[in-house]
Parts: sequence; C-alpha cells; structure tokens
Amino acid sequence: MDRTALTRRGLAALIAAAAAAPALAAQSARPMPSWNDGASRTAILDFVRRVTTRGPDYVPPGERIATFDNDGTLWVEAPIYTEAVFLADRVKALVEDNPELRQQQPYKAVLDGDRAQLARLTEADIVRLFDETHSGMTAEAFADLARDWIDSRRDGRFKRLYRELVYQPQLELLSHLRANGFTTFIVSGGGVDFMRGFTERAYGIPPHQVIGSSGKASFALQDDRGVILKQPGVGSVDDKAGKPVNIALHIGHRPILAFGNSDGDLEMLQYTTTGDGARMGLILHHDDAAREYAYDRQSAVGKLDKALDEAPRRGWTVVSMKRDWRRVFPFDAQDS
Amino acid sequence: MDRTALTRRGLAALIAAAAAAPALAAQSARPMPSWNDGASRTAILDFVRRVTTRGPDYVPPGERIATFDNDGTLWVEAPIYTEAVFLADRVKALVEDNPELRQQQPYKAVLDGDRAQLARLTEADIVRLFDETHSGMTAEAFADLARDWIDSRRDGRFKRLYRELVYQPQLELLSHLRANGFTTFIVSGGGVDFMRGFTERAYGIPPHQVIGSSGKASFALQDDRGVILKQPGVGSVDDKAGKPVNIALHIGHRPILAFGNSDGDLEMLQYTTTGDGARMGLILHHDDAAREYAYDRQSAVGKLDKALDEAPRRGWTVVSMKRDWRRVFPFDAQDS
Repeated sequence: MDRTALTRRGLAALIAAAAAAPALAAQSARPMPSWNDGASRTAILDFVRRVTTRGPDYVPPGERIATFDNDGTLWVEAPIYTEAVFLADRVKALVEDNPELRQQQPYKAVLDGDRAQLARLTEADIVRLFDETHSGMTAEAFADLARDWIDSRRDGRFKRLYRELVYQPQLELLSHLRANGFTTFIVSGGGVDFMRGFTERAYGIPPHQVIGSSGKASFALQDDRGVILKQPGVGSVDDKAGKPVNIALHIGHRPILAFGNSDGDLEMLQYTTTGDGARMGLILHHDDAAREYAYDRQSAVGKLDKALDEAPRRGWTVVSMKRDWRRVFPFDAQDS
Repeated sequence: MDRTALTRRGLAALIAAAAAAPALAAQSARPMPSWNDGASRTAILDFVRRVTTRGPDYVPPGERIATFDNDGTLWVEAPIYTEAVFLADRVKALVEDNPELRQQQPYKAVLDGDRAQLARLTEADIVRLFDETHSGMTAEAFADLARDWIDSRRDGRFKRLYRELVYQPQLELLSHLRANGFTTFIVSGGGVDFMRGFTERAYGIPPHQVIGSSGKASFALQDDRGVILKQPGVGSVDDKAGKPVNIALHIGHRPILAFGNSDGDLEMLQYTTTGDGARMGLILHHDDAAREYAYDRQSAVGKLDKALDEAPRRGWTVVSMKRDWRRVFPFDAQDS
C-alpha cells in the first residue's frame, strides 16, 4: 500500500471518528434515565465507577461478569411464568391431535387452568409435560415454534406480546454495564432453548450468554443433515444451587454482579457476593401492583423470602419497583 | 455539556483515531503470514471474505460462530494428551501421600507409564483416575493447581512449557476470524476446568467461550463463602456426538466454521457443514514428523480415519501441516 492510500485510510478513520462524536455526547447524558434518583441507582453507578477506575476495587474487563435472572428480573413472571403459558398452549395443540388426553391428568389440569389440581402435580407430571411439549423434535423445529409463539402471543393484562413485557430500567442497566466493559449473562430457570427465541432481540444478549434449564439431547444425521434432537429427560435444572454450578460450567468465572428477584436466585447471589474484591448483589422487589405486580414471601411464583432476609447481612441492594423505577415498560409513557 | 467541551472530546477522538492508523496499516499486511500460499490458505481467506461481504453468502456477525477442537488442532496432543501428563503428575502426588497405592492398578500403570497396561484400563478405571485427580476440591483450588502445573511443566521433546506448544498458524487464523467479526470457541474433549487455566492467555479465548468435558459439581457455603465443589462422576463428555450437543447447549447456534483433527471432531464437522448457507470444515492433518508429529489412521491418540474418508465428499479442507504451514510454533524461527 502506498503512502497516499495510507493517508486516505487515515483520513477515512478521522471522518468516521468525527461522525461518532455525537454518540459520545449522548453517552454523557444521565445514564439509566428510567431509574429514579435514590440509593439503588447511586449504588449501581458507584459500583460500576469503582470497578472500572484504577484503584483498589478495579476489575479488568474480562472479569466484569454480570449475571441476571430472567423471569421477574428482566421481564414479567406474574401471575404465571411465560413459559408455562407456552407449555399450556403446546398442551392444547397436543390434545387437539390426541383428543383422548382431554380428560386425563396432568393434561386436564393444564387445559382447565385448574390451580388446585396444578398445585398437586408431581415432579414426574411436570417432567412429562415438559417432555411432551419441549422434546421429540429437532432443536431447530423447537426454536421455530418458540419464536413464532413469542412473536404472536399476548398476555391477559397488558394486551402486549409477552416479549414486550421487559423492564425498561433493566435494559438501561444492561446497556450501562456493557458500555463499561461488562459481559452480561442471563442465568435463568427458564428453558434455554425457549429463551433464546427472544433474548438477543429483547436484551441484546447473544445466545451463548444465555444459560438456562435444559433437557437431554442427541445428535443425528437426518437425510445427511446434522441435527440436534431434543430428547425426553432433564439435563440441567438451572435454579437455586444449579445456578452457581452452571455459572462455573458455562462462564468459568465468579460474577462480580448478580441481579435476581426470588429465592431461586439466593445461591447465585451468595456465590457472586462472597468472592474477593468489589461485588454487588441486587434483588428486584415486586411492590408495585399498580404498574406491575406486588408479591414476595407468600407467592407461589417468584417467592422472595430467604433472600430478602439475607439481603441486609450480605449488603445486597433491594430495588423497589415502586420507588426506584420511574418507568416500568418500554411502552409506558416517559413519565408514568 | 457546552460546545467547547464537545469539540474537545471530538478532537480527542480524532487524535485517538490518528494514533490507531498504523494498526490499520498493519492489518492490511498479508494476513496469516505463517500459512504458505496454497489451496488451504486461499480457501480460508475466500470463505472469510464471502461471509463478510454483502452478497449471497453474507452472514451477520452474531452468526459468525467458529469452533475449534483443542488437542491436536490448537496445540500438540502427541505422543500423549497434555492433560494425561497432568493426570499422571497428580497421580504421583496422590501416591506420595498414599504409598499403599503404588502397587495397585490403575495407579501402577500410570506411574510406570506402562502402555500395555494403560491400554487395558476400563472406562471405570479412567473415570476413577479422573475423579481422584480432578475432584474432591473447590473449583478455585483445582484452577490454581492446573494453572501452576501449566506454568511450570515442560514436554520431553521440545523442552518447552506445554502451553508454548501452540500452533502459530492457528493463532493467526483465530485473530483473522475475530478481526472479521467471528466469535471463536474451543470445543474440546479436554477438561473444561483444566483448559481454562491457559486458553485465554494462549489463544485470546475467554473462559465462557471454552466448552469441554466436565465432572459433576455442587455449590456450598464454606465458612460463609460460596464455593463450587468438584464432585466425582462424569458430567459431560465433550467428544464425538457430545460436541454438537454441547455446541447447541452452550452456544445455541450452528457454527459456520469448524476446525478439528481427529474422528472425535467428525460430528462437529458434520453439524457445522450441513447447515444452510456458506460453511467451512477444516481438518489438520499431522504429516510433519520433522517439525511436529505424523499420525492419522492408526494412532491411539488423535486417530483420524473416518473424518479423512468423509472430507472429500463433504468438501472439508484437509490442511497439511507439512505443506500448508510455513512455521509451526511461535518459538520457531520465522522461516523454519
């Protein structure tokens, strides 16, 4: 390459940098605008500043690992997990093809939405329901099913697509962390293949940074095409102690920040915040029945009891949806 | 922010861009300099160009997933897998603490390096050896052990640290892929916790992009500190069909490029190259006894037989170490 070409490339780079200048200015605006001023927002901004600034709390970028629960932390989980609605819709399709199942349990309980019966389902019933709706097809066929569903199914209260029921303040927190060199992961009890149908579009988190529960699987050549077959049986339950175990397996680093909302996140929070150096644990407290839902210690879904008790001793930040969030959903008016 | 400050930031960005200009010039030098001109190098460069250029073969950056086997693909695996040397060293330490094991199998075979006996070890023997050397401690304690070992242990032939026995042409290929928006993963039969002790330093691949075999694990609070305990028992064997299954679980995307060197990589290559759109499969053929090793169809370690037969039909590129690589190791003279 001659020097003229080099100069031309240099000039092109300069022009590109000049074009990027407004983006720099935008970033210097108030970060996390949907968070109200207060102890939670301040604690987050302080933590990010400390671990990114040379000094005693500095953490190199490769170790800036942040893990987020999904259901109830990044999107709505009440009154029932979204994946349970997906499962019920799949059971409906199954019963349409096999009408003799209509009066049999556990299908009947699911189709009737019979809470008393549902509460009585055994673990074997639940595994069977997952097996029959989440396996017996290729991973690609399941991904298509899950994506079609998430792109069309609306919830009962907000009349929105489920994938729109994500929390605007959390989207801003994820962005703020990534802008500061963090790698953001989802670590959720939800099915990994179900979540990957929307997590990149909804949160900007690529599939390989999504950890979840999984079934067994196998590899086969079908018509000379390699496919992954989703098999019956539980692979990994990514909940409670399963979360730190899967973090070690998939990430290989203890996170420095973890955000959850239920006792299912207790061990992930313990693992994250008992490491050496600067650490941050956060719990989203659903205390806003007007804008979303209010539940904690007595809830069947997203029960928050032990982790709430442990929070003060461990120095975890309990985020109040009502007090700390200026706006809940992206579709809310800017000042709701 | 007033306009003067904005201008100052803009100028700072311009100066930073100007400083980066030599790096741009360096990138425009001949990529992958340790690869000889020839069909393999041309096929790789063409593939990368096609998937990064708008046109029929274009692949968006998020789907530019490349998976690499480790043993025999990124570093030396002959005459014996490095992790087996680590295991043998750990067995020695175990027997020093428990001298009564010295005359018992399978320990005796390992300590004597008795190939005939070693070939006779059952799967249960091998699992026991792994259990006794790779579990019974926290993940952090094991990581320290593995890192100390890899930072001090030298091989018999080259008298180098094992972690220096990485292939210079592959380092350049990994860099070339990443410079073109690929995300690079290791998918290896090696133990994931062992590999993570050197993979980031050796290859620039972060721990969460390293997939390997694993044992069982649990979470516990020890003196109120959350730890991962490495437990006996097999978690996942990341070899043969286990590779595409783990790719689906950990990455959630079919790779568009896979590089292996043995029949253990056959299914990963099949899975990668039978997807739609542009795909590339590569096999490193060890045919260079002078600079490294020569082995294929009859080898106990890194046997390459079925995959070599399947390569022409599938259009996989068989890379000849002897013919395609100008230089093998980073410590080799520039023109060896």
